[in-house]
Amino acid sequence: MIESHGSEYALPVVAVVGAGTIGASLTALFVAHGIEVRLFDKRADAQVLLEQLVLEALPDLDRLGIGHGVPRGNYRLWPTLQEACHGVTLVIEATAERLDAKQCLLAEIETVVSAEAVIASTTSSFLPSQLQVRMTSPARLLVAHPFNPPHLVPLVEIVGSSRTQGWAIDRVIEFFTSVGRKPVRLNRESVGHLANRLTAALYREAVSLVADGIATVQDVDDAVRYGPGLRWAVMGPHMIYHLAAGDGGYRQYLEHLGPTQEARWKDLRTPALTRELCDQLVAGVELAAKGASVGELRLQRDSTLVSVLRAINKAE
Amino acid sequence: MIESHGSEYALPVVAVVGAGTIGASLTALFVAHGIEVRLFDKRADAQVLLEQLVLEALPDLDRLGIGHGVPRGNYRLWPTLQEACHGVTLVIEATAERLDAKQCLLAEIETVVSAEAVIASTTSSFLPSQLQVRMTSPARLLVAHPFNPPHLVPLVEIVGSSRTQGWAIDRVIEFFTSVGRKPVRLNRESVGHLANRLTAALYREAVSLVADGIATVQDVDDAVRYGPGLRWAVMGPHMIYHLAAGDGGYRQYLEHLGPTQEARWKDLRTPALTRELCDQLVAGVELAAKGASVGELRLQRDSTLVSVLRAINKAE
Repeated sequence: MIESHGSEYALPVVAVVGAGTIGASLTALFVAHGIEVRLFDKRADAQVLLEQLVLEALPDLDRLGIGHGVPRGNYRLWPTLQEACHGVTLVIEATAERLDAKQCLLAEIETVVSAEAVIASTTSSFLPSQLQVRMTSPARLLVAHPFNPPHLVPLVEIVGSSRTQGWAIDRVIEFFTSVGRKPVRLNRESVGHLANRLTAALYREAVSLVADGIATVQDVDDAVRYGPGLRWAVMGPHMIYHLAAGDGGYRQYLEHLGPTQEARWKDLRTPALTRELCDQLVAGVELAAKGASVGELRLQRDSTLVSVLRAINKAE
Repeated sequence: MIESHGSEYALPVVAVVGAGTIGASLTALFVAHGIEVRLFDKRADAQVLLEQLVLEALPDLDRLGIGHGVPRGNYRLWPTLQEACHGVTLVIEATAERLDAKQCLLAEIETVVSAEAVIASTTSSFLPSQLQVRMTSPARLLVAHPFNPPHLVPLVEIVGSSRTQGWAIDRVIEFFTSVGRKPVRLNRESVGHLANRLTAALYREAVSLVADGIATVQDVDDAVRYGPGLRWAVMGPHMIYHLAAGDGGYRQYLEHLGPTQEARWKDLRTPALTRELCDQLVAGVELAAKGASVGELRLQRDSTLVSVLRAINKAE
């Protein structure tokens, strides 16, 4: 019994299959909440990578006040899938984005977990119905898609197919809520789920503006982070427009400025990611990075994200 | 001489034409930076509205540490356009979005300001070339488009037409930089400038997801603010993907995940803002607002924005 946790409630034991960026970040988050994590990853360097990623994540969680006094070592890689899944009530599949490999793995997970365990895939690209095709009891399979870095960004998209049962969805929503996440449940499955459709829509225009020579990569990025991006950390796009047209709110906005939106939508186009355009985008980002490595930029991102999260948590 | 300002540099005197939300918010920002603002607005209730909006904005600026010790009363509505523009080097036109009215007003402003004054319109919808059609010296007209609320959100988009001269653009960029803004200059004019094209692209999908029954208004808003919106307050969309595919950076991202983006782009569609859909959107926002008025929500937004800006300023 962990004294600082102060709860009689038995914490679940979670299996994480795939100890890469997502799996390790989730592991750090779960462990900081006092949850035992059992991992499986067949890559030879899994142990080293896992330790490094968890150690990187823990100070961020400290700064957010998560897991003070909780032992940090309550996770372990197991040599077999069967051992990793032993006695768990939730399996999180966080392997690379290859459909066939995921389908095989999920069918294998089924054979080694208890009948009442829920299986959640963190896939960003595939639909739960695609993942279920080789499973004998697909009712307990769903998608729980977190955002990079998952130990910091609260959103987790919860998506079931028509074959997923409600109890499995409820259980996963309850679990992610208990570790401080913000689960958002989709009414039905959709390519890219919810947030990656929204980011794809924004990104398409971010690429178009560069392709059309209207602005540089750095200008587009600055326009987002010093402009609407600041507001999107505070309110979603619908609520933002509710406040954009005086005291008449969203109704007034849609009546007065709906046609302006429709005119802009007509002007948006789809660029082709040609080799030349990709070269231009990469050169633009490298210029903006001013010599900083990907690792250094990631630390900067996470450090500032922690500061922003602390500010928002205090303000709410 | 304002003692606390501690500079021998003569501050510009700025005219703001149109004392609505944008004009008043900019007035608060400029005054807090020790700049005299001369306003013109022919509406009968302009004085009351202006005072109210400036008084609302000043505490936010205080919390950001802007304008401590600077007198707050250095702005005034003048009875005529000519008096408001007397002796200024910069006129900011911030009236309602009506092209014909703006064209007439800008031609009139020309006749009452000094030859070397720059005229900047805050228009979100119109191109500088459209605003210049009735002007006799269009070379000094450009767009300087801020974001709501302009005393908090740093982005100001700077757009000239082919007829706008470089010195006018340079002067306005220098001015907005001096009041702590982040001017981003477009290479050429474009409907919606830069950021409103990006927001329109995101918004189109935010509407589509509701129209298609995939999620509610509240779910879409939550998916943004608890997910990618948090990251967009810290980094733009290009840099985010530079960090999304391991140490190979943006090149690796585009090679591995570029096709996924293109697949998502093909799946995005354009909804029609029908009366039924607008009713659904308005009902969704009202549910999410939980009884809070537009005014209350605006204060919440601004208060949290100030906290986020403080966090980002400290982290940078």
